[in-house]
Amino acid sequence: MTDIHAVFKAKKALIAGGLGFVGSNLAHKLADLGAEVLIVDSLISGYGGNLFNVDGIKDQVKINFCNICDSHNLAQLLSGQDYIFNLMGTHNKYDGVDNPFYDLELNCRAHLSVLETASKVNPDAKIVFCSNRNQYGKPIQLPVSEEHPQKPIEINGIHQLTIENYYNFYHRVHGLKTTGLRLTSTYGPRHFMRHHKLGVVNWFIKLILDNREVYIFGDGKQIRDINHVDDVTEAMLLVAAHKEAAGKVYNLGGAPVSMENLIKKLIELTGNGGYKIMPYPEQFKILELGDYKADYSKINKELGWSPQISLDEGLRNTIRFYERFKRYYW
Amino acid sequence: MTDIHAVFKAKKALIAGGLGFVGSNLAHKLADLGAEVLIVDSLISGYGGNLFNVDGIKDQVKINFCNICDSHNLAQLLSGQDYIFNLMGTHNKYDGVDNPFYDLELNCRAHLSVLETASKVNPDAKIVFCSNRNQYGKPIQLPVSEEHPQKPIEINGIHQLTIENYYNFYHRVHGLKTTGLRLTSTYGPRHFMRHHKLGVVNWFIKLILDNREVYIFGDGKQIRDINHVDDVTEAMLLVAAHKEAAGKVYNLGGAPVSMENLIKKLIELTGNGGYKIMPYPEQFKILELGDYKADYSKINKELGWSPQISLDEGLRNTIRFYERFKRYYW
Repeated sequence: MTDIHAVFKAKKALIAGGLGFVGSNLAHKLADLGAEVLIVDSLISGYGGNLFNVDGIKDQVKINFCNICDSHNLAQLLSGQDYIFNLMGTHNKYDGVDNPFYDLELNCRAHLSVLETASKVNPDAKIVFCSNRNQYGKPIQLPVSEEHPQKPIEINGIHQLTIENYYNFYHRVHGLKTTGLRLTSTYGPRHFMRHHKLGVVNWFIKLILDNREVYIFGDGKQIRDINHVDDVTEAMLLVAAHKEAAGKVYNLGGAPVSMENLIKKLIELTGNGGYKIMPYPEQFKILELGDYKADYSKINKELGWSPQISLDEGLRNTIRFYERFKRYYW
Repeated sequence: MTDIHAVFKAKKALIAGGLGFVGSNLAHKLADLGAEVLIVDSLISGYGGNLFNVDGIKDQVKINFCNICDSHNLAQLLSGQDYIFNLMGTHNKYDGVDNPFYDLELNCRAHLSVLETASKVNPDAKIVFCSNRNQYGKPIQLPVSEEHPQKPIEINGIHQLTIENYYNFYHRVHGLKTTGLRLTSTYGPRHFMRHHKLGVVNWFIKLILDNREVYIFGDGKQIRDINHVDDVTEAMLLVAAHKEAAGKVYNLGGAPVSMENLIKKLIELTGNGGYKIMPYPEQFKILELGDYKADYSKINKELGWSPQISLDEGLRNTIRFYERFKRYYW
């Protein structure tokens, strides 16, 4: 991978959702690289934001609390930024079913606000956003490449696809320099740990650290392709730094593993917890997308990205973090 | 085609957007078949609604003016309906670019409101909705079947796709009996005739009737697949009447014709007007999707639909209508 880190020194970078999981990990990296980081967040309860996530870089970043849909705020905030990382919104497919209007606001309207405002006040900024595997729906073949049909089966996946289409439109018609990453299951430090809805891998880590029994639904053999958050934020820097990534979307992918084997590994690494395999409850089954394995050869060939952190190393690092900072996340 | 008309007698049918082009033509048919028709419309200026569209059936239909996004209104209106035809919203791709937030409200939020409310107060109703070719984006092959990739390139097409995904979701997860029709260019009586943005075929009919010169952009050879509105409303009745259409989407298609040949035919039929071929202005070119020809074999095989009205007959009938009722549309 080319060393692209130097380009961020003294550059202005806005991270929307910068107090959340991926956003705050990115903020740490950018602060370390000498970027001038502006975090924008509204800290909506239960959606992942946590002030402790910027512990250690508090004096190096600015935080602006606001509603990202307000175009007056936004014009001020987006102006003059070299990089805009848009990590706000929600990937919570359970709440999307229960309250589709809220998902529409937090996702479609919020991203549209950023794009429409950027097209007016800062059309030259590089803009990076993330969607996820939900936009593909149930895979018809594995691994899933960017060309796989996109037939999302639930509200959040439907909106992820809508959002990506927005970014492509603003690139094509308004010339914005947008790049999208389609994330798979991402785990690591600084995740929300108070309910299961924002990511099951992190939730299972919590349960195991609490010495609890994990319920794996189905047969335990379902494959999830998981990425450590440091590999994901590295990809974000990479696409931000490369001009030729503008107007493109890339899959990320990492370590495909069955849920049962993942839990076994967590039990082995911690010496804690247990698991039980049981049938899917109806409300989970209807949203289950089946096995997933990403084909990330496009970003590998074009930009040289590949995941650098092994599953063992990533899980150890994650476990250490939560053991140390449990009180801020539990 | 099976005769399905008898099933609508004394049935309750709600038509959202029932004062608009397709909605009002459907209202005429349903009223003639003895259905109890409730039209819901908000008559937003410039979006196609016209009170004259129900001339002749005024005493047979009820009209309720309201904002379809208000869930209190909607619960009252949807309750007890046997059929819900959802034809509100906009297919105007020009305004979608200029005001994407309005398109988001009129399309995504409005359809989501109907679905979410129906799932609570009337999950057994048969629900029919229409999207259009815009959701496919630029065709990569012709004719375009339902399996063609969906890569909409502008805001309205993006939202049409989002809406169709909503309907599929509410069918799959909430059991609603939804059927979608993907329309191609539709023309005929009762269309809005005061600007070009709601349908170029009808707009050209207006210009020719006014003895004006039509500007055809590009080379004039671009193919549009056009359907007379009576064939479209017939398809709507057909999918509404057939239980096995629930959860499905179907292409409609009709007479593929080049823009130049269409205009020539209009000039021949009316003895009026002229045309000039000229390059695409930038604001049109960027939204141009290229040739289109629908593969409608799915609805033909499964339900027996095919367009019955020839281009000549359809244009003659349309011209007669506007010559007679010009003052209500010009």
